[in-house]
Amino acid sequence: MMKENHKVLLTASQLTALRQLIGEEKVLTSEEEKVVYSYDASKRKYPPSAIVLPRSRDDIVKVMRFAYEENIPVYPRGSGSGMSGGSLPVYGGIALVFTQMNKIIEIDEVNQSATVEPGVVLSELQHAAGRLNLFYPPDPASAEFASIGGTLAECAGGLRCVKYGVTRDYVLWLEVVRMGGEVLQFGSDAVKSVSGYDILRLLVGSEGTLAVFSKIKVRLLPRPETAYTLLATFSDEITALGAGIELLKNAFVPSALEFIDSLSLQCAYDYSHDQRIKDVRGVLLIEFDGKRAQVEHDCSEAREFLSRRAGALNVEIATDRQSIEALWQIRRYLSPALFQLGPTKYNEDIAVPRSELVATFKAIKELADRHKLTIAVFGHCGDGNLHVNFMFDENNKDEKARVEQAIPELFQMVIQRRGTISGEHGIGIMKLPYLSLEYGEAELRIMREIKSIWDPKNLLNPGKIFPSDNFRTPPTTQ
Amino acid sequence: MMKENHKVLLTASQLTALRQLIGEEKVLTSEEEKVVYSYDASKRKYPPSAIVLPRSRDDIVKVMRFAYEENIPVYPRGSGSGMSGGSLPVYGGIALVFTQMNKIIEIDEVNQSATVEPGVVLSELQHAAGRLNLFYPPDPASAEFASIGGTLAECAGGLRCVKYGVTRDYVLWLEVVRMGGEVLQFGSDAVKSVSGYDILRLLVGSEGTLAVFSKIKVRLLPRPETAYTLLATFSDEITALGAGIELLKNAFVPSALEFIDSLSLQCAYDYSHDQRIKDVRGVLLIEFDGKRAQVEHDCSEAREFLSRRAGALNVEIATDRQSIEALWQIRRYLSPALFQLGPTKYNEDIAVPRSELVATFKAIKELADRHKLTIAVFGHCGDGNLHVNFMFDENNKDEKARVEQAIPELFQMVIQRRGTISGEHGIGIMKLPYLSLEYGEAELRIMREIKSIWDPKNLLNPGKIFPSDNFRTPPTTQ
Repeated sequence: MMKENHKVLLTASQLTALRQLIGEEKVLTSEEEKVVYSYDASKRKYPPSAIVLPRSRDDIVKVMRFAYEENIPVYPRGSGSGMSGGSLPVYGGIALVFTQMNKIIEIDEVNQSATVEPGVVLSELQHAAGRLNLFYPPDPASAEFASIGGTLAECAGGLRCVKYGVTRDYVLWLEVVRMGGEVLQFGSDAVKSVSGYDILRLLVGSEGTLAVFSKIKVRLLPRPETAYTLLATFSDEITALGAGIELLKNAFVPSALEFIDSLSLQCAYDYSHDQRIKDVRGVLLIEFDGKRAQVEHDCSEAREFLSRRAGALNVEIATDRQSIEALWQIRRYLSPALFQLGPTKYNEDIAVPRSELVATFKAIKELADRHKLTIAVFGHCGDGNLHVNFMFDENNKDEKARVEQAIPELFQMVIQRRGTISGEHGIGIMKLPYLSLEYGEAELRIMREIKSIWDPKNLLNPGKIFPSDNFRTPPTTQ
Repeated sequence: MMKENHKVLLTASQLTALRQLIGEEKVLTSEEEKVVYSYDASKRKYPPSAIVLPRSRDDIVKVMRFAYEENIPVYPRGSGSGMSGGSLPVYGGIALVFTQMNKIIEIDEVNQSATVEPGVVLSELQHAAGRLNLFYPPDPASAEFASIGGTLAECAGGLRCVKYGVTRDYVLWLEVVRMGGEVLQFGSDAVKSVSGYDILRLLVGSEGTLAVFSKIKVRLLPRPETAYTLLATFSDEITALGAGIELLKNAFVPSALEFIDSLSLQCAYDYSHDQRIKDVRGVLLIEFDGKRAQVEHDCSEAREFLSRRAGALNVEIATDRQSIEALWQIRRYLSPALFQLGPTKYNEDIAVPRSELVATFKAIKELADRHKLTIAVFGHCGDGNLHVNFMFDENNKDEKARVEQAIPELFQMVIQRRGTISGEHGIGIMKLPYLSLEYGEAELRIMREIKSIWDPKNLLNPGKIFPSDNFRTPPTTQ
């Protein structure tokens, strides 16, 4: 996708200067390290020329100033669990890796908030909050390894968005460092603030292209007293999807509402032999959380509704930890199980209005038939956010060509149905060629102009979001 | 505050051209009309040179193109209910008034969303949604007359933010018109989208300075089955505030949590002779909403908690419409009742982290004593958002001078306590001199640069948010 000859390599003298600036031990340049930091969950590979591991804001400032003066691209990176290639060093330069800045600075019980460094792993924050009966709702599938900085950069979603919203809804303020080293802070410790423009939420979801996050404060909620899970099985996938939509239309407020299609279920069954999903052709996994009495009430009403009015074959309610885990295990089987269908997976996280879900699902299956492709679909039905998994073999050139033909068709269909090409993964490099399907030239011009305010030399995470012809290799590097 | 000689007056030929462009009946220029559109709830007066009432997006485009070419400032205005002067034509020019664009275009029950023109009155949307068992949570005190466009421009809050968040959390997409007439659309019909920068939420809360809204789509929620109200009375205001904080700390999730101080209660009692608040020195008004059984449970637990563990004198629960109205009437008395304390009111909507509420309240009372001023405080305790009402006589020069000395001291104190100078009213002209207390030069420079991307000639709502020395009267006007 990117041309190798655009790659910015640090010179020996630049590396020496960088080591002197922030300390020998924070700069890695071995070939092995370059491989480690060359890829993310998108599976694309672009090795950096050097890896820098800051330990403090001061380290970040020094690197951002040095790189600006030397015209070296900087690629911020948390745990590298992004699905869209947001952290990949596509033009070489410096990978700025936040894994050493992983302190939970404070959890404030009165204000129900947490102040953290960007490298904190999301699940660590979730557990620390949980120990104080608090709750950080954003919950992407990568929570066990994703850094919170990365989840802010991509405005991560997850299972609970249908009730709790996305990452952007939980950020109180951000301390950031611009290219050149300027430190800024946007947002407020107060939960409500309308002072000046909402730059905070512009930064969230900006995929590391505007500024680097050095300190983060997020809002927490009281931890729900309990959460129960329902597994509803269906004889066909359209009925399952329709049941999910009807549930929301009838004022149920689940904290998760996941759909799994027939093909995915077949794989999960073959993988696990879980009898619950034997011969089942559509599933909804539903969670209700809150006070116990209310959750019990919601679950029994939902079971009634799904069985009597929405065509469910069977509805199982899990109320203890072990049974709940067993039900969610079905969802977790999917990731390994789908590889029975092909060694390569492209997971496109499209989202549509709920009213378009059924038609979108049918169109995806039609797309698979037309291109003779295998597409397994599951996802966050409550948000209209489907994971469209193209399962294929990238070494099969013919098949790969058909996938690459089908993807733009998928996106075009989704846009026609008033949807979005990315519900939660971001644009990164993976969807960069398609952003113009969703936004016109005028809208993209505004975005590009905002990028150039923050980063006039286009050195921070260049080659992301916008078409890459934008990047000119700075003259002082080879 | 603004210099009269900066005022842009439309020439006779410009007025003729404008009338020809969009139609005679949509352009008003009588002195009476200019008075009508010269003020808002901030009570400051700046008459426009002409009033334009667009009926369609095309009308808006024509006016925005014309004004751009002719270097005429444009001041977008909904119902003029803003508290910070956001719609005031401080440099004359055109008041672009959206009251004729007041159609609810669609309420979509499946997707739980509403598409509206910007001039729709907020309570009309609330009622229309309610008839379909849907619910639009943002609820500023001005809901009966505020236009939805205005509430988006200021990112309005209200009583329910403590549970439901603010206006920004409910906007799906915006169609906007820039100075010059370019039409753009940001956001998505899908409830989750991370395609490109979050320009949508940059526009929300931008106080009409970046672009004019021509069409709006918002998210709705299922209407809660019921809502009950509690009135908790206290023997002193500090205990009342503390009880509110403790309630949240103990995982209660009220849909409103309002505090009223002793002085406000005294006024409300003198005005209404409501025996509930006789000799009461602090009050919490609390709402719980949701399913009936859960609400009953929450109310009885909250009463128990407030009485036994938080020092309430008495807790009354209202469960039928009439009793609920009677309790909220106490809150509504405040607006007229406070004028017993002085004919002029400056209402400052500061917000602080909850942990700072008690100290902030004490500091406000100390500020009142020190400057010999009368300050009544009430507000959204759950958000740390207090309405600090300076009650005085603006014709009393000495008193007015003391108010004007006390206000920056209030804001400085609030910032020291990690708060914000505006929780929900916006900066407009009223807080423009103080924004630099909250944001440093570097942060404000980013904001100004964003303003100039959208509006390089500084013709859209000039003189707002940022210090006014920024505005240069364009050369072709007098």
